[in-house]
Amino acid sequence: MTRDLPLSHSLIEARVQAALDEDLGDAGDITTRATIPAETQGKAMIRARKPGSLAGIELAETAFRLVSPDVDLKRHCADGTRLSAGNDILEISGPARAILSAERVALNFLGHLSGIATATAALVNAVDGTDVKIVCTRKTLPGLRALQKYAVICGGGFNHRFGLYDAVMIKDNHIAACGSITEALRAARARLGHMVKVEIEVDTIAQLEEVLREGADVILLDNMTTDQLREAVKLTKGRAILEASGNITLETVRHVAETGVDVISSGWITHSAPNLDLGLDYIS
Amino acid sequence: MTRDLPLSHSLIEARVQAALDEDLGDAGDITTRATIPAETQGKAMIRARKPGSLAGIELAETAFRLVSPDVDLKRHCADGTRLSAGNDILEISGPARAILSAERVALNFLGHLSGIATATAALVNAVDGTDVKIVCTRKTLPGLRALQKYAVICGGGFNHRFGLYDAVMIKDNHIAACGSITEALRAARARLGHMVKVEIEVDTIAQLEEVLREGADVILLDNMTTDQLREAVKLTKGRAILEASGNITLETVRHVAETGVDVISSGWITHSAPNLDLGLDYIS
Amino acid sequence: MTRDLPLSHSLIEARVQAALDEDLGDAGDITTRATIPAETQGKAMIRARKPGSLAGIELAETAFRLVSPDVDLKRHCADGTRLSAGNDILEISGPARAILSAERVALNFLGHLSGIATATAALVNAVDGTDVKIVCTRKTLPGLRALQKYAVICGGGFNHRFGLYDAVMIKDNHIAACGSITEALRAARARLGHMVKVEIEVDTIAQLEEVLREGADVILLDNMTTDQLREAVKLTKGRAILEASGNITLETVRHVAETGVDVISSGWITHSAPNLDLGLDYIS
Amino acid sequence: MTRDLPLSHSLIEARVQAALDEDLGDAGDITTRATIPAETQGKAMIRARKPGSLAGIELAETAFRLVSPDVDLKRHCADGTRLSAGNDILEISGPARAILSAERVALNFLGHLSGIATATAALVNAVDGTDVKIVCTRKTLPGLRALQKYAVICGGGFNHRFGLYDAVMIKDNHIAACGSITEALRAARARLGHMVKVEIEVDTIAQLEEVLREGADVILLDNMTTDQLREAVKLTKGRAILEASGNITLETVRHVAETGVDVISSGWITHSAPNLDLGLDYIS
Amino acid sequence: MTRDLPLSHSLIEARVQAALDEDLGDAGDITTRATIPAETQGKAMIRARKPGSLAGIELAETAFRLVSPDVDLKRHCADGTRLSAGNDILEISGPARAILSAERVALNFLGHLSGIATATAALVNAVDGTDVKIVCTRKTLPGLRALQKYAVICGGGFNHRFGLYDAVMIKDNHIAACGSITEALRAARARLGHMVKVEIEVDTIAQLEEVLREGADVILLDNMTTDQLREAVKLTKGRAILEASGNITLETVRHVAETGVDVISSGWITHSAPNLDLGLDYIS
Amino acid sequence: MTRDLPLSHSLIEARVQAALDEDLGDAGDITTRATIPAETQGKAMIRARKPGSLAGIELAETAFRLVSPDVDLKRHCADGTRLSAGNDILEISGPARAILSAERVALNFLGHLSGIATATAALVNAVDGTDVKIVCTRKTLPGLRALQKYAVICGGGFNHRFGLYDAVMIKDNHIAACGSITEALRAARARLGHMVKVEIEVDTIAQLEEVLREGADVILLDNMTTDQLREAVKLTKGRAILEASGNITLETVRHVAETGVDVISSGWITHSAPNLDLGLDYIS
Repeated sequence: MTRDLPLSHSLIEARVQAALDEDLGDAGDITTRATIPAETQGKAMIRARKPGSLAGIELAETAFRLVSPDVDLKRHCADGTRLSAGNDILEISGPARAILSAERVALNFLGHLSGIATATAALVNAVDGTDVKIVCTRKTLPGLRALQKYAVICGGGFNHRFGLYDAVMIKDNHIAACGSITEALRAARARLGHMVKVEIEVDTIAQLEEVLREGADVILLDNMTTDQLREAVKLTKGRAILEASGNITLETVRHVAETGVDVISSGWITHSAPNLDLGLDYIS
Repeated sequence: MTRDLPLSHSLIEARVQAALDEDLGDAGDITTRATIPAETQGKAMIRARKPGSLAGIELAETAFRLVSPDVDLKRHCADGTRLSAGNDILEISGPARAILSAERVALNFLGHLSGIATATAALVNAVDGTDVKIVCTRKTLPGLRALQKYAVICGGGFNHRFGLYDAVMIKDNHIAACGSITEALRAARARLGHMVKVEIEVDTIAQLEEVLREGADVILLDNMTTDQLREAVKLTKGRAILEASGNITLETVRHVAETGVDVISSGWITHSAPNLDLGLDYIS
Repeated sequence: MTRDLPLSHSLIEARVQAALDEDLGDAGDITTRATIPAETQGKAMIRARKPGSLAGIELAETAFRLVSPDVDLKRHCADGTRLSAGNDILEISGPARAILSAERVALNFLGHLSGIATATAALVNAVDGTDVKIVCTRKTLPGLRALQKYAVICGGGFNHRFGLYDAVMIKDNHIAACGSITEALRAARARLGHMVKVEIEVDTIAQLEEVLREGADVILLDNMTTDQLREAVKLTKGRAILEASGNITLETVRHVAETGVDVISSGWITHSAPNLDLGLDYIS
Repeated sequence: MTRDLPLSHSLIEARVQAALDEDLGDAGDITTRATIPAETQGKAMIRARKPGSLAGIELAETAFRLVSPDVDLKRHCADGTRLSAGNDILEISGPARAILSAERVALNFLGHLSGIATATAALVNAVDGTDVKIVCTRKTLPGLRALQKYAVICGGGFNHRFGLYDAVMIKDNHIAACGSITEALRAARARLGHMVKVEIEVDTIAQLEEVLREGADVILLDNMTTDQLREAVKLTKGRAILEASGNITLETVRHVAETGVDVISSGWITHSAPNLDLGLDYIS
Repeated sequence: MTRDLPLSHSLIEARVQAALDEDLGDAGDITTRATIPAETQGKAMIRARKPGSLAGIELAETAFRLVSPDVDLKRHCADGTRLSAGNDILEISGPARAILSAERVALNFLGHLSGIATATAALVNAVDGTDVKIVCTRKTLPGLRALQKYAVICGGGFNHRFGLYDAVMIKDNHIAACGSITEALRAARARLGHMVKVEIEVDTIAQLEEVLREGADVILLDNMTTDQLREAVKLTKGRAILEASGNITLETVRHVAETGVDVISSGWITHSAPNLDLGLDYIS
Repeated sequence: MTRDLPLSHSLIEARVQAALDEDLGDAGDITTRATIPAETQGKAMIRARKPGSLAGIELAETAFRLVSPDVDLKRHCADGTRLSAGNDILEISGPARAILSAERVALNFLGHLSGIATATAALVNAVDGTDVKIVCTRKTLPGLRALQKYAVICGGGFNHRFGLYDAVMIKDNHIAACGSITEALRAARARLGHMVKVEIEVDTIAQLEEVLREGADVILLDNMTTDQLREAVKLTKGRAILEASGNITLETVRHVAETGVDVISSGWITHSAPNLDLGLDYIS
């Protein structure tokens, strides 16, 4: 139920149109216009070339539809699907010019977002059986955050805050400016509305204890060893949500999860996930 | 001389502002506003955490400057610089709130673009001593193409066409619609202006021979073995620019380059290059 | 410290410019251009005509500055100030044309936002001595929400969620769709990230008890009598934040506050607050 | 016939979409997506909770339609209708998610504009039987002027100029810069096209006489007593349109109208009209 | 005094930036970046190559300034100046790259608008000594109307209405829909505000007489012979402003002016005026 | 096949909507709304008043369709058609209000672009029987370049580069900065990608010889006599494309074409072509 794009139809159209404009420029697809008659019809299938998780099919569909309203689209699978190499994803029939002109933009969206879903799913898979949630961060690519956060959900992950505006995250510099952890937490509570969650970053067990005395909704345990994480879990006794972060890899994530933390956050799934290899095959 | 951002100042500002808006939303940086007094001053340095090539410093600078005109910036190195872990990149002094609010956007631009420059430089390095140019493709992330193409130049690469609008690339579907390679090349020449270069994709030596009989500016040799590439070079005798593409990796790129082709194109450097690890350290 | 406009400089400029464009159209200020020489200089003061609380001075300043960079501005009081009739607010000197062309836009922003701050301050004043926070709602005027929410803070109030995106609010229709309060709360918790607060609306004490069994961050007590509110406070025992809403007026707000709820929300302060009467007097 | 929204369809959509974006942000309606299945259908009715005049129904309809093209809308009354408490206004059927996500934006537009129409109708009613036109001013809320001016028409009023660009209004500062009323009127006539009406503000009968000697299309009688207004009417003898302004209230407006002026202008109907209380009831 | 651009600074910047973006695209000025070092300085002068009237110098200045803030500009004459071939107009010194990259956009604005001013001045000159005003129409080029209307003023002309929104113009189809000239004029008066001028088009003297009985602010005499125009002037006796239109040329305009009409309108000066020949000479 | 608008549907809509907004403003078509009932239906035909070549029919259609989706359109001829005076072009049926409100914008686009197509066709006609291509330049009107370049194609011409971004054009200032023609050509080749054509401007035969020694794709022969052009053709022997420019008129163009150059470029067809006279006749 949560794998619907959070963006409104018009925002999706605006973003895909911007990508089409970036590719088409003022002169348009000069190759296709010079070599393909307007009336030529075609059919094509987007297929997975490698295994992975799908994300972004509505963006791909929108690319073809915006180039020509005469394109027919048939979805072979939904976002969140685990794909094998060769799986059919989206069938496109209609004017050959439109299929060729929209192809690259459609694949650029779909490959990038499915790459993120695939990377996320790998981490989610690695912690299977624990209660840990894998979440993304604000380490996203400029202009693509909402789409990337959606792709994380398609891969089975969850979202951390969307930006600086929807939750508080107190780091060492905020603490320094306020004088202490206690002061910083009090300042946040006094000045902010009752609907905002407060997270605070700690590097040591001593800091954690100070936070627990004052109270916070979420505590970020940054770059701690698994031993430290385990101790943090024991000390906290469920009084706050515990989030581990720092150097999370496919190799380490299960060990971190098994310490008993609630949430593990990763920047890699949004800033460095490689493209999922997808292609468009012309059927006729 | 070519490592200047091709975008005008106002376009750079528009893109950075859009990224700031994405992060700040309608409520702004609620943490910083609640915990840091407006008058607190700070100083920070962006540093490389891993070795790589720098790209995008003007975007990072613009992020801080747009959040506050009172920020002072001191550039420690220029785009294109080969960085070692620990190298100083950009020093920021001014209102602590501005430094904290712009930090993530600045690093998101800088880490992504430097990641592309680093990946490009690795390929460029691998073909050192040959005359081959490493070029990027249209496999870019939506909305980021102009910046990504600039980062490729920072890494020592060159740009292929920017979009569907500035050069012709005839692929198998265009050929099929025209009836033959010869017909497609004639259609392009007859219908397009005299300032447009024409490239055509071939998969076999027989196709290459048909292209050479008719004439083309550039020929894309797609997924050919190094033996085929060598034969293509021999047949062409400099009558067209030869571009090799398909499964170019750090391991294979030198072998391809040594066949004598002029250009090697890679989608990986723009759609899958991992983020370069950079960080912002507070000095005071 | 929290009375800084949460919007970035460029967003403030964009909004004020849009208001100027709405007033100036394609032909500009035809009266001023026809009757005032470009070189005529003037001086003027914005003054309160009625008592109230100030909000939006940066918007007024921006209006003058955008019409002419040659305008000098001197702020006589800051946002949040309690004004008496006759108080000086903002002094403007510079080209007479610019003062006259920007006057209406500056006053439209300042009068509206100060009207909201004044209405909020009246409610805040009425609950003085209690721990209750007065908060606004999503009943705002289209396109003005961020500014209106800022004006509420200038009046001594706090913000509820900014939109549908930054916190959960479960109402009867959501409950009906899920089957029960318990199911709705579980669905929200299962599908949403760990940084999102969950509020749920209840109309009866029985519903409140079901919420308390399952747990929620905030409970909205809608249109309850003060007796019901008192009972709700007693039952909840601090396990959730309690918010009262519905028909809050200057007459009733203190009675509601004295029941012991934590938060009182009002739509009236944003959708119906009358303009604060301010005027611009020409000094020379 | 004049109660059609003056804005084109695409401008209406642009404004409603901006309001939806303001409410939905990047993450969308997180409550509804977490608790309501995509396939759940619903039906609802917007109803008047208090008596008043309707304005803005097309904006409300557009809000639902933009969130989902699958929504069916049935209008129960048109803009300009005098509503009793309980009257049905707009019936909405379709996806429950869309109804819930668009509800607040639809009501925010409709309540605000109907509030203006209601305030206007009260003044119009008060001068019933006279020939006086009630008109609005440029004292509007930023970004909402065209919609507010339309709401005034729905309430039976008329529009003054839309901005600084479509008519001339000479005030005391313009007169001072030109040297005299006579000079100011001549400057305006000499420099402006033949399609522009010229209005001039006077505070005294002596000023009125100077205006009448030189000629003007419209004369603004600012803050005059009813005795002064009566004398102005007598002196003018139909040679110009007379507009009264300043402290117009429901109590005073009829007395002013009965002096024989042609037009009465009010800032209150646009900058301070309280929201009309409307609600959305779920039927199923 | 009226030769100031009616557009605000930010609108001028927005339009010039859009023209620069159209010329620079995503890749920028690739020639200049490849051949001119960033540090090379230059000096250039925009000069008239043919005689004419100047319009648009602020747009030309803005083009250079937006490409580089380091450009120094020295204006040698103001908008409205009658130029001889060879006259200096604008001196530009600064980075050679910026001068070369902005040159074409600056000249495109300046040549087009000066062409309009020149064509207008020719008509104004031809009616010299009469009281007739030469005015432009709505026959303008899409997106350039405000600038073109300003250029008309630079040439000594006046503006008709700016669009469909700022004045009424009743043509035969409006009359047909209302039933008669009288009905159409009454409908307009009943439904529109008191600040709107009403013009009506007539083709015959009989129609003119009907208009004069009912009253109108302005009467358009369309495609009438000079004999008809003379009769119209005699009949009207100053009760309305008379505007002649249709096939106005440099040859006919004086004959039309001498009939005694008040205003002559021409579409040719905005939709067909040839570019004024201007050039940029490099001085060093 | 090449006479399709290169712009995407959404860009066409955006440009036409901007032109409609420019004409309709905030108050809309006040004449039509006051005098024509919403339900009145009408039929009209756009016809040529003078002979010429058609360009821009999709823009005219879009204008009517955007004002009302209820308009029916019937195209009587396609872009590129040679029109005689009186030829039917586009039939419009539907709401009379929509026809009247969109008429001027539709005709403004169609008259301007058809004017360009007509001017181009005159030059193309004059060189009939030669192999010369007539091409346009960057001397276009701001914001209209892509449409104007399309109109040139409708008239039988071809496009030069679209902007500074899609091809290199080395002029005397670039050469001076590099030191020599040879250095400038080498700098361009070394720094630019393999898909960019390089043109260089020469004024003398000596310069041409230097270019031919180094090699260039295209050579611009600026302001040469026909004798010089003939010598340039003889010297070049097909090693580069030769483009003639400077003072090309209907009288001179054939002489230039007969020298054997490949391409003749003209700024006049885009910056000074007079409007083609078209009109809209109401049929019922």
